[in-house]
Amino acid sequence: MIVRLFFNNRLEAGQIICLDEKQSHYLGNVLRLRAGDVFYVFDGQTGEYEAQITEFAKHGATAVIGSKTKEMSLSPDIWLLFAPLKKDKTDMVIQKATELGVRKIIPVRTAFTNAEKVRIERFTAQAVEAAEQCRRLDVPVIEDVQLLPELLKNWDVSRTLLFLDEKGRGRKIIDALSGQNKAAVLIGPEGGFRSDEAQMLEELPFVKSVSLGQRILRAETAAVAALACWQAVNGDW
Amino acid sequence: MIVRLFFNNRLEAGQIICLDEKQSHYLGNVLRLRAGDVFYVFDGQTGEYEAQITEFAKHGATAVIGSKTKEMSLSPDIWLLFAPLKKDKTDMVIQKATELGVRKIIPVRTAFTNAEKVRIERFTAQAVEAAEQCRRLDVPVIEDVQLLPELLKNWDVSRTLLFLDEKGRGRKIIDALSGQNKAAVLIGPEGGFRSDEAQMLEELPFVKSVSLGQRILRAETAAVAALACWQAVNGDW
Repeated sequence: MIVRLFFNNRLEAGQIICLDEKQSHYLGNVLRLRAGDVFYVFDGQTGEYEAQITEFAKHGATAVIGSKTKEMSLSPDIWLLFAPLKKDKTDMVIQKATELGVRKIIPVRTAFTNAEKVRIERFTAQAVEAAEQCRRLDVPVIEDVQLLPELLKNWDVSRTLLFLDEKGRGRKIIDALSGQNKAAVLIGPEGGFRSDEAQMLEELPFVKSVSLGQRILRAETAAVAALACWQAVNGDW
Repeated sequence: MIVRLFFNNRLEAGQIICLDEKQSHYLGNVLRLRAGDVFYVFDGQTGEYEAQITEFAKHGATAVIGSKTKEMSLSPDIWLLFAPLKKDKTDMVIQKATELGVRKIIPVRTAFTNAEKVRIERFTAQAVEAAEQCRRLDVPVIEDVQLLPELLKNWDVSRTLLFLDEKGRGRKIIDALSGQNKAAVLIGPEGGFRSDEAQMLEELPFVKSVSLGQRILRAETAAVAALACWQAVNGDW
């Protein structure tokens, strides 16, 4: 098992780092590592390094950074836009999207979005944990929740928005994905998009409607499925 | 919302059917349907029909089958072979695989499989529920758990076995999938395959090693991702 921790500061060899309470607890109490033990750290900016625990002090552990083990590389240029679901499903979407290498995640409020308060901090913690485990070198950026109309109004038209039409009316995904190296996948809430939302989306020049067949997929299944297909066609798989 | 129930008997228009306790409870107490209300039934053999509740009696509801709403069609010819995981993850794999249209699911015991008792009845109940919700016309066949070496010994060599090599050594999935209309996806347990298992797999002529990139995917993510890619390339998406 490889132990990796993310630090949201630029790291370099020789630097002394302080682990926060959660990290110290994880290394010391959960994994039972001791001073002298080695783990890995990454910063999302310069790459991944070995690190050696120097001590477990009262308020947290310290470690010294050793040699670089991986040069920095960004995940492919795919984003996920999704309407937040119930807590455990949202956690799953964030975790899976991180494993599947999305660069950015934007929670989107649509007409039928039926989620409790959207907690960006919780989303970020999920993404960090998944990035640590799947051995990514970056952590997806989690943006603040946005309203669908505003998101579309400010959209960078050079990024294709792949709209998963749950009515099965879109193009076959394998055809629609071809050449879409800079894209975003948009997944609606459990109830789908309201008809005026779907119509608005279909009329926008940067939107491509995509179908995932006739079976009705749950929102989180559709998210994983579409991201996997994108990775297979355009990404780093 | 569309209410659909699976009956594991051949159905036809005009037939009277008895709902079991669970189905009666679901329609009567959860959904609060009443005599005269309409729902849908499918049998995995002849298709989907309308059905009308005739009464809620003491020991269960009865209904009469109306006209056929969909002609029978089988899901595409893709199977999932997976090493059972912890309970909630296994449930997720069965649910998602059903949504993604697999025709058959075989639990496989490998060297590192670390699951409690494999409960085929529970798996089947999960598959039925997912099939009802995603509007499939068939329910995936769930086979008894098999040991990996025996499964491979008795394998029909005309079906390609797509072996997801977690070490990232396989071919790109988009290339490996081309033309694989009759296939099975094999997913290992959390710890991966033991080296002798991986070697045995790689030497078999009907096995294709496939890579899902350098990030380490959880077993359930890999299952969903690989099935989605197969559907996009060879299936009915």
